[in-house]
Amino acid sequence: MSKKILFVILDGVGDRVLNGRTPLEVAVKPNMDFIAKNGVQGIVDVISPGVIPGSDTAHLSLMGYDPYKSYTGRGPLEAMGAGIEVKPGDIGFRVNFATVDENWIIKDRRAGRIKDARPLAEALDGMEIDGVKIILKATVEHRGALVLRGEGLSDKITDADPHEVGKPVLEVKPLDDTPEAKRTAEIVNKFIRKSYEILKDHPLNKEREKQGLPPANIVLPRGPGKVPHLQSFEDKWGIKGIFIAGVALLKGLGRFAGLPAPDLEGATGGYDTNPMVKIERALKFLYEEDGDIAFINFKATDVAGHDMNFEKKVEMIEKADKMFEMVLDKKDLVIAITGDHSTPVTKGDHSGDPVPLVLYAPNIRTDGTLHFSEREAAMGGLGRIRGFDIMPMLMDLSDKAHKFGA
Amino acid sequence: MSKKILFVILDGVGDRVLNGRTPLEVAVKPNMDFIAKNGVQGIVDVISPGVIPGSDTAHLSLMGYDPYKSYTGRGPLEAMGAGIEVKPGDIGFRVNFATVDENWIIKDRRAGRIKDARPLAEALDGMEIDGVKIILKATVEHRGALVLRGEGLSDKITDADPHEVGKPVLEVKPLDDTPEAKRTAEIVNKFIRKSYEILKDHPLNKEREKQGLPPANIVLPRGPGKVPHLQSFEDKWGIKGIFIAGVALLKGLGRFAGLPAPDLEGATGGYDTNPMVKIERALKFLYEEDGDIAFINFKATDVAGHDMNFEKKVEMIEKADKMFEMVLDKKDLVIAITGDHSTPVTKGDHSGDPVPLVLYAPNIRTDGTLHFSEREAAMGGLGRIRGFDIMPMLMDLSDKAHKFGA
Repeated sequence: MSKKILFVILDGVGDRVLNGRTPLEVAVKPNMDFIAKNGVQGIVDVISPGVIPGSDTAHLSLMGYDPYKSYTGRGPLEAMGAGIEVKPGDIGFRVNFATVDENWIIKDRRAGRIKDARPLAEALDGMEIDGVKIILKATVEHRGALVLRGEGLSDKITDADPHEVGKPVLEVKPLDDTPEAKRTAEIVNKFIRKSYEILKDHPLNKEREKQGLPPANIVLPRGPGKVPHLQSFEDKWGIKGIFIAGVALLKGLGRFAGLPAPDLEGATGGYDTNPMVKIERALKFLYEEDGDIAFINFKATDVAGHDMNFEKKVEMIEKADKMFEMVLDKKDLVIAITGDHSTPVTKGDHSGDPVPLVLYAPNIRTDGTLHFSEREAAMGGLGRIRGFDIMPMLMDLSDKAHKFGA
Repeated sequence: MSKKILFVILDGVGDRVLNGRTPLEVAVKPNMDFIAKNGVQGIVDVISPGVIPGSDTAHLSLMGYDPYKSYTGRGPLEAMGAGIEVKPGDIGFRVNFATVDENWIIKDRRAGRIKDARPLAEALDGMEIDGVKIILKATVEHRGALVLRGEGLSDKITDADPHEVGKPVLEVKPLDDTPEAKRTAEIVNKFIRKSYEILKDHPLNKEREKQGLPPANIVLPRGPGKVPHLQSFEDKWGIKGIFIAGVALLKGLGRFAGLPAPDLEGATGGYDTNPMVKIERALKFLYEEDGDIAFINFKATDVAGHDMNFEKKVEMIEKADKMFEMVLDKKDLVIAITGDHSTPVTKGDHSGDPVPLVLYAPNIRTDGTLHFSEREAAMGGLGRIRGFDIMPMLMDLSDKAHKFGA
């Protein structure tokens, strides 16, 4: 009988050794350890050995896509995460609402971390430039996403954001000789000019100036990427999935693969997140809505890694562990717990260290390991595999796979 | 000095854990354990992690071929297994001798599991349709193999067998727009009509009807595949081999690779098989006929897996173990024991679980494992490799390989 699949990604959970132990080794996490003891562990190169995964490429690989073929830059994913329904051929960008002076010298790349830039985005959203539709959405603080939709566009253009205060806004330039790249660069430059003209006099900015706050008077696009044709996850694997995440980028990624990525109250992607709403949603999908696989991304472990906060990472692992209390009694559930990459607290950023993986399924070959951790996983029965190997293994363990040959 | 190679494939031997142990762990198999103790173990993804191998694709990979490039469907292999000397460009099919009524509605897909359909096959074998030669051989019970030989043929056509009683025989249709596919579909349809016209009045069927048995009055082809050009095993590796198996499909596969696949009395492929005739034939080939490598397939372990019979699988492993008594004293022999895939008794079919592998050669790096089994192999010194990695390792261990570079 075909089984259900729960695939939990503890974002950035892999770590290195500090004072003799990793955060996973220090954390008290009885549920994950129970799964490890009754399952089988291994280590995973999410992309390939030593290659540092981004959150986006990592999740593509974990969903079974070849990230080298399906990844086209962060812009399109950010746009999807912002709730824009992108289409193949669209050019997506990440944008900042920034502060410039009248000579377009950057005063503040984040416009004083403006709380809500939505009225500003709405003032620009929907315009047309040279027959190309402009879609702009504000997301969190000074961040947003831009999409250009029209014929003859290219993502082979440079960024406008100089990434440094005191520098002038960069003119966007084509990166190759095609008319498409030249045209797209021109349109983006026109859009930036328009954004300044409209935003500098926007009432919200006038109000900010009155309060002594830096005005968010220009939009700076970066990270262009063309939205590719990606086979949907459900077509690719022939099963029904859901992608549960707190942060916009990852929701966008799930939707990019054609999976529903619900907005859940309490799933914040931060230290204050409530993982129980995620596991409840996952189990409802699997057991009440005839779902086959539920992905859950738990972001707070990665945040602690970036913050270089060992204790907080331990605490977040312990918080995530609570989720698994709700699944230990399931007899028809295949469980995978892994990371999308390591974010060592000693580094404060992603690293190329492999991530631990534990698989649990009825009758699975156990391996004698007792705790879910990087170093026990390296001794586990799965050996060392790649990120995109996990999906075929889950398909097999849940009796959803087909034979190759006879 | 170059050594001999014995490569034993315990079909479907890999399993999962039932009541704490796998059949390999329960079986008393002193010879394989001796080899494990003095050799080195690892786990093998015969195709790739999680991918469920068929017997055919698995053996291609174990012989060192890329199964994604060399596999073209089961038809050609079945034909070779039936003893038809296929040639590149031939189209091979599996067929059933079936029972239809006068409106070609299926009454029995297996014609009452007719004992011997050879006289019926002989009545059709050798005819020509539109300049294409028809080769038809009956194999076991209602089963057989069909080959079309001639110019301008394609395997891009549908099956005739509706796989259901009460349904009409399907008209064979081209799957693409080529004239070859159209022509081949027409020829197969004409062949099916011919088979009905000739078989419905065949004396053997008249006799069956008298006895109240369903007449085998039509031939239904399925699983068409074009015989590819495959580099012969001996050309590929530069060594002389033999392929010893009990079942037709695997003998066909050995011959497909250009290896002799002798018919041995007592090698049945079933629980009653006598593996000693296989090891004797292998040793004769290696030590009296100047052979380099002997493949032995032992099928009964897979049969027990399909039968979901744990005790029988244990018994068959113990039966296979006897073979190795005859090789423990050989000083110039490299031994590999593995499976082509797992067939867990808890599943009753092939699974994507990796298979255990033990390699033995003089002076090999041992790993401290003591028993040949899935879970000790996962702790072994070979780590986790692919099926097509084994042949190069055996070539190296037997001093038959050449350096890559200088």
